[in-house]
Amino acid sequence: MLSKSQLSFIKSLHQKKYRKENGIFIVEGIKSIIEFIDSPFKIHSIYYLAQYQSLLPALPANIKLFEVNNAELNKISTLQTPQGILALIYIPEAENLNAENLKGSFTLVLDGVQDPGNLGTIIRTADWFGFKYIVCSLNTVEVYNPKTAQATMGSLARVKVFYQDLSFFLADNEIKVFGALLEGKSMYQTEWGGEGLVILGNEGQGISEEVQAFITDPVTIPRVGAAESLNVAISAAIICSDISRNLQK
Amino acid sequence: MLSKSQLSFIKSLHQKKYRKENGIFIVEGIKSIIEFIDSPFKIHSIYYLAQYQSLLPALPANIKLFEVNNAELNKISTLQTPQGILALIYIPEAENLNAENLKGSFTLVLDGVQDPGNLGTIIRTADWFGFKYIVCSLNTVEVYNPKTAQATMGSLARVKVFYQDLSFFLADNEIKVFGALLEGKSMYQTEWGGEGLVILGNEGQGISEEVQAFITDPVTIPRVGAAESLNVAISAAIICSDISRNLQK
Repeated sequence: MLSKSQLSFIKSLHQKKYRKENGIFIVEGIKSIIEFIDSPFKIHSIYYLAQYQSLLPALPANIKLFEVNNAELNKISTLQTPQGILALIYIPEAENLNAENLKGSFTLVLDGVQDPGNLGTIIRTADWFGFKYIVCSLNTVEVYNPKTAQATMGSLARVKVFYQDLSFFLADNEIKVFGALLEGKSMYQTEWGGEGLVILGNEGQGISEEVQAFITDPVTIPRVGAAESLNVAISAAIICSDISRNLQK
Repeated sequence: MLSKSQLSFIKSLHQKKYRKENGIFIVEGIKSIIEFIDSPFKIHSIYYLAQYQSLLPALPANIKLFEVNNAELNKISTLQTPQGILALIYIPEAENLNAENLKGSFTLVLDGVQDPGNLGTIIRTADWFGFKYIVCSLNTVEVYNPKTAQATMGSLARVKVFYQDLSFFLADNEIKVFGALLEGKSMYQTEWGGEGLVILGNEGQGISEEVQAFITDPVTIPRVGAAESLNVAISAAIICSDISRNLQK
């Protein structure tokens, strides 16, 4: 049984303020948790229904394990339909972004993405296509939001996400800056080359004017039908696939 | 002011059972509502905060208009952050799917997609790329779910969505059947040609065995990194873009 203080501690982590204060975030579901166990992330504790215990791999002794019942899991879960197991994971110390590491590959740059599910889906997609880093503007949604972590399906354990003042970051950059705009060169004619940054903007406003100024190569996904725009995670995926196709030529 | 019975009628439409019983669904947000006003769909009534009245176009007299206050809108809205205006729209009578209409173009076929947001995003993306029809298995999530309607961002007013027993539908089909699988021919080498069905499966299980049997051309989005899978709306978008690129050659 969990104590009252344990329950209220875990529930506090549903809020950004307390995640930041405690340096801990929540991940749910056995598959995602195993990805984190197998990664450089450090696990604080794991809470599971009895039937999930056998699915856990051998764990270091410093990870605290708690069997919980359904009522307790419902209280601590961030999901409408809890997935039987929940882990608290330490937020790693922010690393410095070394611009040299971005050369010779492609990196997504997110300017003000607000929806946590979109950010999570972008991380999962980037991981599929082998993108190692994502750079977010300071006003992009927090990567340790439970909805973001959930939507990454474990890819957050692999893709490194940095938060930067994009004007400073882009001013220092030496490689091509592609930007997804509603008007630009057709993506199907884009010459991606072997390296670059790819900027995607906010769900409603797109890329801010300040950041647009740094784009060297505007890219447009050609519209055939009548929808006014594409979801940002959808645009990111279409572009990642096009880059990946080009690199495989 | 709305009457108690109005409030409870609109709230009942948050549930599938009552949407079906009354033949009415909910759409929110001025942009989406205008798309429906400009479409063959018929509007039942519109509920708006005072400041939204001026944004509405001229409307036929049979559409009932109600000014509401914030408290009322919060009660009838399906959204955490209501968007100032909500419309009730008549569910059109199910049309018969004429397989002849699918020849000479591409159509997405969804086998058991469960997440309403995924279905909505797929409809929006299909609309962007000019796909006119989507065929769903009978166990695919309901297209008039408020989360689906919301995620389509108005594209539901244009793309026609049919629900079919896929085994019957596919048995009668005469054009190529592409299917998105984790193993198959690389999408980048796929010869799409000028027409086809493209099957996408359930979020966890993929395409059911029964439906897989109808696939003539398995298609895989090549994985470079380590993510186990892609979100189904992401896969749909990547494939739609590839087909669109090919048609534009």
